[in-house]
Amino acid sequence: MPYTTIASRIAWSSRWYRVRQDDIVFPNGQHGVYNVIEHPGAAYIIPVTADKQIALIRHYRYTVDDWLLEIPAGSLQPGKTHVETAAAELKEEIGGVAREMVEIGRYYALCGICNMEAVVFLATGVELGEVEREASEVMEIVIRPIPAVLDMARDGRITDAQSALALLRAESALHDILNR
Amino acid sequence: MPYTTIASRIAWSSRWYRVRQDDIVFPNGQHGVYNVIEHPGAAYIIPVTADKQIALIRHYRYTVDDWLLEIPAGSLQPGKTHVETAAAELKEEIGGVAREMVEIGRYYALCGICNMEAVVFLATGVELGEVEREASEVMEIVIRPIPAVLDMARDGRITDAQSALALLRAESALHDILNR
Repeated sequence: MPYTTIASRIAWSSRWYRVRQDDIVFPNGQHGVYNVIEHPGAAYIIPVTADKQIALIRHYRYTVDDWLLEIPAGSLQPGKTHVETAAAELKEEIGGVAREMVEIGRYYALCGICNMEAVVFLATGVELGEVEREASEVMEIVIRPIPAVLDMARDGRITDAQSALALLRAESALHDILNR
Repeated sequence: MPYTTIASRIAWSSRWYRVRQDDIVFPNGQHGVYNVIEHPGAAYIIPVTADKQIALIRHYRYTVDDWLLEIPAGSLQPGKTHVETAAAELKEEIGGVAREMVEIGRYYALCGICNMEAVVFLATGVELGEVEREASEVMEIVIRPIPAVLDMARDGRITDAQSALALLRAESALHDILNR
């Protein structure tokens, strides 16, 4: 690590994430403060149905006061693995149960300010049922063919960065499903 | 807006971003608290040189204690437009000056917790010169052909989500440059 950490404290915290504030020394000897939003990490799920469609969510996001097209996702729950979190969110947000769930990649969500790692799962053979949403989740399900969803990720109609990247990272796996 | 905001306060703030904490009422009448990380927004720049290569940065990120491949980027500065911020970051991080800079898309960086919007610019005819980095910026420049960089965005070698998505959103524009 090219920086030296001299002191560390929690500057603010909530149930979902917290801000850690560190006093550090940069490689050039200069002193400074670095704030890190500490997040437990998240699972993102691409739900593909037996008829080769993707189930998206049209989700109201209070942070940006806008409706966004997204894939199901959720923060890592204490004591749960990423794949367990993925299965739980799939069920909660779209009532989905997958025949198979495979990790296809991971990335740092917003590395300039936050330590959150996103782990992406491709869920296949997904059957949709009853939803069990939280009160804060205002959303509706949108089901579209795989090629149409990839177009939406590429051309910007999917304005949630994490969902768009998850889909584009899955592009070759999704083409494999189409060609099956 | 499906939620009603009853009260709003700044729970924590720094020079770079702050946390706004709102008391809200959900559509089902339930009361709750929503925290929003307020960020001024950011510009991301894809720097393409005259010989059709992309200049990446290998950047140490204290948040995740890891070295990441990224494109130049920076937070919106007060009084500066996105394109002015993009030009300033291009100069500061890689000593770059672009012949042309075109916005190719925008997205919400991490909509679950943060209001940050990322605006992506394609910078062409970029010439590289002296860098003017901040003390906190520990990085080196990595120059690679366009197809190699697109592969790195697709296969996960570019682990910064924002950089990877910016590149994949620019894919057709980058192919146009290759075919010129």
